[in-house]
Amino acid sequence: MPDTSEQRVLRYRGADIPCPLRSPITGSRKVYVAGRRYPDIRVPMREVLLSAPACSGDHRPAEEPLLLYDTSGPWTDPQADCSPAAGLPPLRRAWIEARGDTCELPAPTSGFARQRAAEPRLADVGIPRRRRPRRALPGRRVTQMHYARRGLITPEMEFVAIRENLRREVMPPEPASPADDRLIPATITPEFVRDEVARGRAIIPANINHPELEPMIIGRRFLTKINANLGNSAVASSIGEEVAKMVWAVRWGADTVMDLSTGENIHETRDWILRNSPVPVGTVPVYQALRKVDGRIEELTWELFRDTLIEQAEQGVDYFTIHAAVRREFLPAARRRLAGIVSRGGAIHARWCEIRGQENFAYVHWDEICEIMAAYDVAFSIGDGLRPGCVADANDQAQFAELRTQGELTRRAWSFDVQVMNEGPGHVPLHLIPENMTRQMEWCDQAPFYTLGPLPTDIGAGYDHIASAIGAALIGSLGASLLCYVTPREHLGLPDRDDVREGVIAHRIAAHAADLAKGHPAARRRDDAMSRARVEFRWYDQYHLSLDPDRAAALRQEGLPADVPADARYCSMCGPEFCSMQMARRTAGD
Amino acid sequence: MPDTSEQRVLRYRGADIPCPLRSPITGSRKVYVAGRRYPDIRVPMREVLLSAPACSGDHRPAEEPLLLYDTSGPWTDPQADCSPAAGLPPLRRAWIEARGDTCELPAPTSGFARQRAAEPRLADVGIPRRRRPRRALPGRRVTQMHYARRGLITPEMEFVAIRENLRREVMPPEPASPADDRLIPATITPEFVRDEVARGRAIIPANINHPELEPMIIGRRFLTKINANLGNSAVASSIGEEVAKMVWAVRWGADTVMDLSTGENIHETRDWILRNSPVPVGTVPVYQALRKVDGRIEELTWELFRDTLIEQAEQGVDYFTIHAAVRREFLPAARRRLAGIVSRGGAIHARWCEIRGQENFAYVHWDEICEIMAAYDVAFSIGDGLRPGCVADANDQAQFAELRTQGELTRRAWSFDVQVMNEGPGHVPLHLIPENMTRQMEWCDQAPFYTLGPLPTDIGAGYDHIASAIGAALIGSLGASLLCYVTPREHLGLPDRDDVREGVIAHRIAAHAADLAKGHPAARRRDDAMSRARVEFRWYDQYHLSLDPDRAAALRQEGLPADVPADARYCSMCGPEFCSMQMARRTAGD
Repeated sequence: MPDTSEQRVLRYRGADIPCPLRSPITGSRKVYVAGRRYPDIRVPMREVLLSAPACSGDHRPAEEPLLLYDTSGPWTDPQADCSPAAGLPPLRRAWIEARGDTCELPAPTSGFARQRAAEPRLADVGIPRRRRPRRALPGRRVTQMHYARRGLITPEMEFVAIRENLRREVMPPEPASPADDRLIPATITPEFVRDEVARGRAIIPANINHPELEPMIIGRRFLTKINANLGNSAVASSIGEEVAKMVWAVRWGADTVMDLSTGENIHETRDWILRNSPVPVGTVPVYQALRKVDGRIEELTWELFRDTLIEQAEQGVDYFTIHAAVRREFLPAARRRLAGIVSRGGAIHARWCEIRGQENFAYVHWDEICEIMAAYDVAFSIGDGLRPGCVADANDQAQFAELRTQGELTRRAWSFDVQVMNEGPGHVPLHLIPENMTRQMEWCDQAPFYTLGPLPTDIGAGYDHIASAIGAALIGSLGASLLCYVTPREHLGLPDRDDVREGVIAHRIAAHAADLAKGHPAARRRDDAMSRARVEFRWYDQYHLSLDPDRAAALRQEGLPADVPADARYCSMCGPEFCSMQMARRTAGD
Repeated sequence: MPDTSEQRVLRYRGADIPCPLRSPITGSRKVYVAGRRYPDIRVPMREVLLSAPACSGDHRPAEEPLLLYDTSGPWTDPQADCSPAAGLPPLRRAWIEARGDTCELPAPTSGFARQRAAEPRLADVGIPRRRRPRRALPGRRVTQMHYARRGLITPEMEFVAIRENLRREVMPPEPASPADDRLIPATITPEFVRDEVARGRAIIPANINHPELEPMIIGRRFLTKINANLGNSAVASSIGEEVAKMVWAVRWGADTVMDLSTGENIHETRDWILRNSPVPVGTVPVYQALRKVDGRIEELTWELFRDTLIEQAEQGVDYFTIHAAVRREFLPAARRRLAGIVSRGGAIHARWCEIRGQENFAYVHWDEICEIMAAYDVAFSIGDGLRPGCVADANDQAQFAELRTQGELTRRAWSFDVQVMNEGPGHVPLHLIPENMTRQMEWCDQAPFYTLGPLPTDIGAGYDHIASAIGAALIGSLGASLLCYVTPREHLGLPDRDDVREGVIAHRIAAHAADLAKGHPAARRRDDAMSRARVEFRWYDQYHLSLDPDRAAALRQEGLPADVPADARYCSMCGPEFCSMQMARRTAGD
């Protein structure tokens, strides 16, 4: 059974850094903002208390506390009642029940799920607390898009509106010089959320079987989000490690996670992750389908795939990556490339087409898949199975043929009220990145773009989180809505918990840089508070406003001689005499 | 005395990684390419030997070895005769002497330098081997720009032409899809180098007193370069550590270094660094000038500053950052900003102006400074003392007033045949970065742009190397020629050796991404070789083609169970069954 409650200590460059999984993020406390339309809504945020300027003779009051977006869930709330075995509180249950368009099922619909539940040897592997699955009543669609199109503002929509605003409606307006000042409104209203979801320009991934989820939104006119990939492989990791990685990922700022397990006990691992995840969880169902036939691609069938979709939908997966746009006719062009097909899901579907001499079963059965998605509100993340795996293959015929097909599938999914985002390219040099965004916007009718990287070079092994952050910041500033992280271990192995932290923070930087460039009205406040803290030598405020307060504090304190007080008005870079900020203050007569 | 010869072992996330300073970079050997015009020229490169595809039944020969740009100098050549106390061989001495326009001086011109040499207590601190300084004969200018304008192709120019080409004239042409295919010619000729230097669009920093230097070029139409800052502070580091950091920085790919020491024994530290540095060394002379008056800015004088310039020029410093464009009239605008003045040099000059009520002495005495620079071939790096220190201050009046003045000073320096680059902004959000490049090109007549970052957000403390790499890649792709690194310790303390490595690699990624985007004809070859090695599971080739072979190897091997052979055709991410590259090969009948 996973234990995520202990205080862990990680070593970073010889220094011990406490890495608790279940305590507030250093320097902030959890607060909740109530809904107006739905008063039982409690939207979590992190409040950073800031100190007064430490200048002699300066009696200004402390700065107003700053509210930050908080992805970490109840794990960082000392008041919250949660443990891995019990899972998180099901905060959305009442909202879902109140809609009256779903029912609880006596048992899972999926044959595979029933079989797993009956296996005695798995009794110790599965999560102790289980819920009965829920499904739409016959003929009903229970997606946020469906409600939005009918003009309904759901609790989920008000939740994300409050969450995106970060209380900016009560703060002084922030100075902005955005690239496009019509992109993001000064205040996000629930009605604006509804409208964007109805148009397909934004999605709220929120499976009715994932009531633990704190709703969030993915779209170009909202804060840029990031995704962290988790999951075991046949040669590494365990359920406990993966749950701990998930808690760790959301602590540092992952807005969604994907469970990409391909190893042992995929079904049970997913249960553990879902019951403990406050953020949407995505999967690539074909991975598990392939495990069910022991890796023999030729034995994959539509029926097996379909059962896997239902199995996962009833567990609560919020979005499925499905590589339905990998059409058979595109494969010759993909095979001629330098790196061929590098998407695992894409490679599975491609090989299936080639072995069977048939069209991709996911493309053929797209409408049936849409009906399943609509019955649980699973969103599509239409896969980019032919994404370029090296800069040599970027923006080529195979990639763009698939992107056009993603657009076609998007429109078909919308006709079933299913929420959609499109996955985008892996390796693309900087000058070819804008074309990806432009074409995706045009061909996929402004559905949200979910990009991996892009990585603008292939030679960064060991540091590919940095290569990815570069491309992600650029495409994010152009409008990509969800940036999939890459960790330092990319291309080399399965990320461990340290890799997850590095990957998440690198992409938080990219996402925030994108939000500043887009002129998001809630983005600049944090930078400006940080800069004031710098000018005034409020070191603790600087740590607390940083994306990783623990790392920032450790790096400064490590460098200072033992006899220098922690609040000294300089650091080891310049010492007391060469600090430009000190010189400025002396000039100002301070 | 610094010892850089030992095998060091660094710990990275619990793993021991050997970090030799004096052995070849893992997986490559040093080779030298001879000159044609000047046959005694030996241009160093790193040759990576690649293996044959490891596929069963595939008898293709091994790939051609790949030549990589090599900044590491004789330190990574086992044949080279060098040690910190003896310094590097003076490879340029004969070239300089042959020009017949300089003479050796019996003693340093600078009073301060003579005084230091005479101090008995410093006998153990200074570097044992000293040379007599050299200066232009009266009335002569000895700059590369002077020679270039007179139509002379110097050995330095042929050296950099060969270095930039990386033997691409004998390799099959590389596929390129550049943003601007007129920017970089297919082959760099010595004549092209001469022409770019003559026009001021590129510089070859090469002080006649730094004969150990392996010439390199900085300009928009050449490979993008990066700079690493070194130097002690009053509270941290020693000469030995700083020399080791320098050797470490060039090992990982720093094209230039700056010695920004502000602590003890600045003069002697610089001697040690210069005699051991194969790359150009820059300084900010006003730091040392301020130390000479014990930090009392009001006591700085033009005479003291002038003596410091001559002292450092005769030691061999290749470029000086001088904040002459911080004019008194710009200060009120700078003082109104959120973060004021964050450049240390800028803050010193600004405070001097305010205390003395006078114009910046460096601006006033610019022509005399140019005469000094021309007598030793020290290049200008015209400082950006009013660069924004937070995104709130980006692209403001103070910044752009200074940039216009940098342009004025550039043209005046060119009238003395002095080589010039301009320093550029620190903190700038992504959407405001292009304007910086455009204005610098226009106002400074295409002199090379040397940028710090820019950092597109202020909240990345502890990870600011990543924030900086994002901005650097973008501005590099637009034409910035030299990217100053930022390390994870930026804003928090003085970087240690690990920070130097992280900072250098992050900015090598940025520079290479920029070169790919600019369509540099020698850039794509390495990425494509890497991608072929990936497809063919040639793990060692992948490590050796990476920017940091040791890190790449450690990260993969750490993740594999002990019973998996190191050449297994998968990694711990996917295991044997889920590798997309494996699936592709099986499809292809392999």
